[in-house]
Amino acid sequence: MANAILLISCPDQRGITAAVTGFVFQHNGNILHADQHIDDQTNTFFMRLEWAIDGLDVSAEEFARQFQPIADRFAMRWHLNFPDPAQGEALPRVAIFVSKQIHCLYDLLLRQRSGQLACVIPVVISNHPNAAGVAKDFGVSFYEFIVTKENKAEQEQKQQEILRRERVELIVLARYHQIFSRSFVEQYPDKIINIHHSFLPAFAGSNPYGRAYERGVKLIGATAHYVTEQLDEGPIIEQDTTRVSHRDSVADMVRKGEDLEKVALSRAVRWHLEMKILRYQNKTVIFD
Amino acid sequence: MANAILLISCPDQRGITAAVTGFVFQHNGNILHADQHIDDQTNTFFMRLEWAIDGLDVSAEEFARQFQPIADRFAMRWHLNFPDPAQGEALPRVAIFVSKQIHCLYDLLLRQRSGQLACVIPVVISNHPNAAGVAKDFGVSFYEFIVTKENKAEQEQKQQEILRRERVELIVLARYHQIFSRSFVEQYPDKIINIHHSFLPAFAGSNPYGRAYERGVKLIGATAHYVTEQLDEGPIIEQDTTRVSHRDSVADMVRKGEDLEKVALSRAVRWHLEMKILRYQNKTVIFD
Amino acid sequence: MANAILLISCPDQRGITAAVTGFVFQHNGNILHADQHIDDQTNTFFMRLEWAIDGLDVSAEEFARQFQPIADRFAMRWHLNFPDPAQGEALPRVAIFVSKQIHCLYDLLLRQRSGQLACVIPVVISNHPNAAGVAKDFGVSFYEFIVTKENKAEQEQKQQEILRRERVELIVLARYHQIFSRSFVEQYPDKIINIHHSFLPAFAGSNPYGRAYERGVKLIGATAHYVTEQLDEGPIIEQDTTRVSHRDSVADMVRKGEDLEKVALSRAVRWHLEMKILRYQNKTVIFD
Amino acid sequence: MANAILLISCPDQRGITAAVTGFVFQHNGNILHADQHIDDQTNTFFMRLEWAIDGLDVSAEEFARQFQPIADRFAMRWHLNFPDPAQGEALPRVAIFVSKQIHCLYDLLLRQRSGQLACVIPVVISNHPNAAGVAKDFGVSFYEFIVTKENKAEQEQKQQEILRRERVELIVLARYHQIFSRSFVEQYPDKIINIHHSFLPAFAGSNPYGRAYERGVKLIGATAHYVTEQLDEGPIIEQDTTRVSHRDSVADMVRKGEDLEKVALSRAVRWHLEMKILRYQNKTVIFD
Repeated sequence: MANAILLISCPDQRGITAAVTGFVFQHNGNILHADQHIDDQTNTFFMRLEWAIDGLDVSAEEFARQFQPIADRFAMRWHLNFPDPAQGEALPRVAIFVSKQIHCLYDLLLRQRSGQLACVIPVVISNHPNAAGVAKDFGVSFYEFIVTKENKAEQEQKQQEILRRERVELIVLARYHQIFSRSFVEQYPDKIINIHHSFLPAFAGSNPYGRAYERGVKLIGATAHYVTEQLDEGPIIEQDTTRVSHRDSVADMVRKGEDLEKVALSRAVRWHLEMKILRYQNKTVIFD
Repeated sequence: MANAILLISCPDQRGITAAVTGFVFQHNGNILHADQHIDDQTNTFFMRLEWAIDGLDVSAEEFARQFQPIADRFAMRWHLNFPDPAQGEALPRVAIFVSKQIHCLYDLLLRQRSGQLACVIPVVISNHPNAAGVAKDFGVSFYEFIVTKENKAEQEQKQQEILRRERVELIVLARYHQIFSRSFVEQYPDKIINIHHSFLPAFAGSNPYGRAYERGVKLIGATAHYVTEQLDEGPIIEQDTTRVSHRDSVADMVRKGEDLEKVALSRAVRWHLEMKILRYQNKTVIFD
Repeated sequence: MANAILLISCPDQRGITAAVTGFVFQHNGNILHADQHIDDQTNTFFMRLEWAIDGLDVSAEEFARQFQPIADRFAMRWHLNFPDPAQGEALPRVAIFVSKQIHCLYDLLLRQRSGQLACVIPVVISNHPNAAGVAKDFGVSFYEFIVTKENKAEQEQKQQEILRRERVELIVLARYHQIFSRSFVEQYPDKIINIHHSFLPAFAGSNPYGRAYERGVKLIGATAHYVTEQLDEGPIIEQDTTRVSHRDSVADMVRKGEDLEKVALSRAVRWHLEMKILRYQNKTVIFD
Repeated sequence: MANAILLISCPDQRGITAAVTGFVFQHNGNILHADQHIDDQTNTFFMRLEWAIDGLDVSAEEFARQFQPIADRFAMRWHLNFPDPAQGEALPRVAIFVSKQIHCLYDLLLRQRSGQLACVIPVVISNHPNAAGVAKDFGVSFYEFIVTKENKAEQEQKQQEILRRERVELIVLARYHQIFSRSFVEQYPDKIINIHHSFLPAFAGSNPYGRAYERGVKLIGATAHYVTEQLDEGPIIEQDTTRVSHRDSVADMVRKGEDLEKVALSRAVRWHLEMKILRYQNKTVIFD
């Protein structure tokens, strides 16, 4: 089950696929998944390659060193994930931020426990005590930070210390109703996933279910996206919708929406963990 | 198959349902459908009642006259549709406005012909010659009006003459890319249905597929709504969405979206014709 | 929030709606929801009436006594749920049966805790130890019964003793992979809800995901239904489907299917608890 | 827009992707789409490669000749579609068989006309006169064959003569309610697409909507599949479902189902025409 994964993006031209797959084959790699996409508008080539490292004739380091000239030739941005058989598999470490609603937190913890999410969840951080019990039940450290305008910089400092100490590689905002400062966000590019409880770009901002009720929409939705400096404007990873009618109160919408949020967020987290997402501009390519 | 339909809205209080259904029963009406809804936020009562007129002991006129005191007691807004057996069934007459894209026009004409839409479609009006052939194939009058800023008032005058002459009761904008003047819209309150090619309120305005592509959404949608003075802000009747991915070009989105538009628009038109829609504030109650 | 609910089915004829709503009004009841349906094929009338008991001029007992003549006149099957204000609200008591997979159990317990399911869950019964920890976390009694061909009658006896002792009114089979004896089922007519992991009637029986994979379907589904003597043949309450492709292994289908199972089962249980389901023949009317 | 497409299936082993993409690159081909899939259960490799022939240094014939050794090395089943620039693009020719219901026929003709289906439709064949007018409107030849047990062999002979004369490469059964003889089917392996009006394998055979109504399902569906000797058992290409409730009569199900049928069938036909379908065993890989 130990596979290497290579993500590539570069200007499109003849020969990229042949060069990359030929290189893996020369080192005796058995390609299991090869996905590619060309964005016509920007003439950009995207690729995700996954191969079994069993039988490969080089180490991760050597592989990367020898691949560099190919990457240079095609002006690639590339990212290689190559498990070190000596070390055993090191699962990515995920921190979950949450406020009062804990349905998404519960859902992620259960999926992690049942093996659907290949990660470790060492820490839950909140601005509310609600999630303390759940975290404890699942054996996860819990930290509460009351954030005000005045202490925000300081609290974020402490949160980042925890993230560093726990070697966190992915931050999931599972209905965390605090806005990070720009400097926080910039430290984790494409490493923070948020769930927004509307089908963005409709009802960006706060209280989307209330506003959806007011507008009389016949569908409600949820959107998982990477967090950027622009609130609710980051690259969308996954969305889903469900029907509502005049019979649905705001409370009914909240209930129906929670099921959407759980599914959309958990898919986005899983795709990120399986390195199936390539970001470009303000969009995502999902090789699922 | 000759049924009477009564639509009611009024402030909620005890006894409305009993009074209305009791009245219909006293006149020997056989109630086939009775739907009601109470909007908790505004304490408004809504009802749709449908009964077979076969065996009824009063005429339409007499029924309305005797019902008036009940309506007064509860401060009802009410609308009664009571077929006159002497005249035979008079189907509602519908005008379709269309621009260059004719997939929705085709769809409506076919559904009308196959009996799914209980109406007559005497006229198609366009600002483009594209639909002339289709209209002819279906034996429908076709009028083309080139609309400019200068001649808009004049052209709308002529369009309204046609609508009056043809005794049109419902106007369907089946991808008609012209904005009516305020005075035009005010003459047809809750009588103009438009299809917008996005899941409103996202991507209101023009070129929604192009903007959806730019934003990188994972769902596209369509919205059928009543037209009011506020462009793309009228009461929503029906919406639907479908998945798209990075593989979908704008052209693919247009193709997928057309299927949504046809289904959402034809449902909205059918519900309107079957008197299943009650408008209140800027929303709709759909008794389907 | 204390409402009375009346469910009715009878042969259709003139005057039922007027008689029933008039009766409630005479006793000063404020009708909140009135849904009715007529099945044309069998000429059967169905009704669900919900009204606030606040201000009502009779007790539950007296209401039922006085309603009996109306019920007799129309040959009604009827069921009245009338909370006793003196006693406080007595929530229905639900037992969950489960085998090895516990995702549906977890989901039901969480929804009950968050207030989405208005019931008490006093007991979990299983033929496998897997769910013991979850039950304990939620403070629910857990009983394990290893069932074999030889001891089945005896074990079911013991299970029924628990159900009686706990005054259980609804049994939910949340992926319980044992078949009850006919005599067990007959004691709980319309009181046992099962989740089947396929879109019945396709792939009835065991191993539906494996068989769906073999058949190469492009959709998988889940079905919540009442349990009758005919395995997987009982009245369907709710179904849902989701897309799969050649990329999905059986394990992927299981993962995707679990989300469907949770949603379909919890909806069915909620509708049952809210008395929104009327069974007739081998079907259900859902007044949602 | 002139692209070559290569479809491959073979036992999986190291080096296939590298060999194939390297070969295309050596001949100066610019790969636009490369999709691959490995079926773990049977260890089978599938690939679809699409490249621009503009700039390619060999003819179709020469390309195929030089590719043969690679195909032999990996024991490939392969199919190459290589447009001949000298001839102009030769669109595949499609025959549509239809009985009484013509909604799918109409839908296919409209999509072909609007450019969504890259094919020519020279002929419509039916066992009923209903479609004659539509065929005429679209300038398509129409043939009616009344088929009985006695004349079946003879009528199929005549149908096949038409298919040969019109050089038909794909047969679409757009609600054609006649069963072809085994010998007819065997002449068109993976060349006959049927739409079945249920979510197979549920309700295989006739009258699926009536049986769905009887069973009380909450979803109805449609299935597009290749026709094999086993009725309704061929490889599934596409399926879709939609919700129904107790309010839907059989006629409502038919109406809702028609929209599913049109969409599922047109997708299946489009994928076939774009060579996006690889059949294996009794399943399909869809590279969309």
